[in-house]
Amino acid sequence: MKIILEGKAKRLLSTKNKNEIIQHFTDNATAFNNKKHFLYKNKGVLNNHISSEIFQYMNKNNIKTHFIKKINEREQLVRKVNIIPIEFVIRNYIAGSLQKKFNLTKGDKIRRPIMELYLKSDALNDPFINEDHVYMLNLAKKNDMEKITKMAFKINKLLINFFLEIKIVLIDFKLEFGRLGNEILLADEISPDNCRLHDMVSKSSLDKDVFRENKGDLILAYKKVFNRIRRKSKGV
Amino acid sequence: MKIILEGKAKRLLSTKNKNEIIQHFTDNATAFNNKKHFLYKNKGVLNNHISSEIFQYMNKNNIKTHFIKKINEREQLVRKVNIIPIEFVIRNYIAGSLQKKFNLTKGDKIRRPIMELYLKSDALNDPFINEDHVYMLNLAKKNDMEKITKMAFKINKLLINFFLEIKIVLIDFKLEFGRLGNEILLADEISPDNCRLHDMVSKSSLDKDVFRENKGDLILAYKKVFNRIRRKSKGV
Repeated sequence: MKIILEGKAKRLLSTKNKNEIIQHFTDNATAFNNKKHFLYKNKGVLNNHISSEIFQYMNKNNIKTHFIKKINEREQLVRKVNIIPIEFVIRNYIAGSLQKKFNLTKGDKIRRPIMELYLKSDALNDPFINEDHVYMLNLAKKNDMEKITKMAFKINKLLINFFLEIKIVLIDFKLEFGRLGNEILLADEISPDNCRLHDMVSKSSLDKDVFRENKGDLILAYKKVFNRIRRKSKGV
Repeated sequence: MKIILEGKAKRLLSTKNKNEIIQHFTDNATAFNNKKHFLYKNKGVLNNHISSEIFQYMNKNNIKTHFIKKINEREQLVRKVNIIPIEFVIRNYIAGSLQKKFNLTKGDKIRRPIMELYLKSDALNDPFINEDHVYMLNLAKKNDMEKITKMAFKINKLLINFFLEIKIVLIDFKLEFGRLGNEILLADEISPDNCRLHDMVSKSSLDKDVFRENKGDLILAYKKVFNRIRRKSKGV
């Protein structure tokens, strides 16, 4: 197996089948465009499990995803797609850069969920962009963007319910999509690395903000999400 | 007459008619969110003339505007509107923040003109926003935004032609719109203060970039625009 791509918290490996690749979850954590990084033992194992469960849930609910199956503790088999170099951020509550940008009250519910686009580019510092920029830079066609927007808000509804069942509030999250022929598939991962998740009762962060803002034990937070999902899928 | 609003390069004054106000052009120039400022003798006179000519041209071409008439050297009578606190930026060529954001080649033509929205807020540093932010912050309805988007691109076509006739290339510009009952009117001004204008032959800046980038005599640049427009409207 050859490494196709070494990402910040994952690496992609080729398989014998040219249409399938392996997504390997490492223990690296980075934030603020790589300015802050750290190694958390077993983060990759937790995220692989959490993301696998969520992608299975998406597949079951008619969201087309790249996910085929979890292979082992750190790896999953996925369909090889051409990633569209845009981060699609969906927000349900005020947090993070949105809070700072408009000086709003952290934690306030947004009347209707909103979407923001960011260009995936470390060199340019992942700038916030709009749809006209997408077309100007030839990142996607209008047709694709309409399809993805619909998918993203549908995924949001599904995810809100998924987390609601385990007493977690979905504040916001980031999605990536890829092309496979004429199809658009949900790709990348959905985990506490790219979702803001708050415990419904204590309101504590169960996501990467623990790392970004030095709010305690990241692994403990991720384990809470992991355990609740495991109990839910076992029907306990 | 009472001052209703003291802006950066204009002030608004009340009249006896509550539906009409006076837009007074001062000689102040500011840039980089007020960090840089200077006084240019007669800039207000030049901008008042240039903007009056352009708004008359828009009125003639079925763009609804706030403009009624030029009263004197520094003042014009306009309809009182409720300004929508969004700056609508239209770009035909790569320049300014767009060039920096994506590290593109300055002066390159954009295949299809693009629009960017900025929140009018000195306190927040006029942040770049998207349409979802507009709805989240209740700045305008979807209906309004569709109407304004159509108007803005129509205005762009008209302006490109207006400047083409006087051998000036319209690089980009900023518009503001206001509400009057159910109508949306083009408001504010259109002048070298909020347009990037390049001489078609020499490629030199005939706009506020002269001030922003210390590229010579601002008044000389604005006078070139003023004189060419005056000759054009006299049919010389």
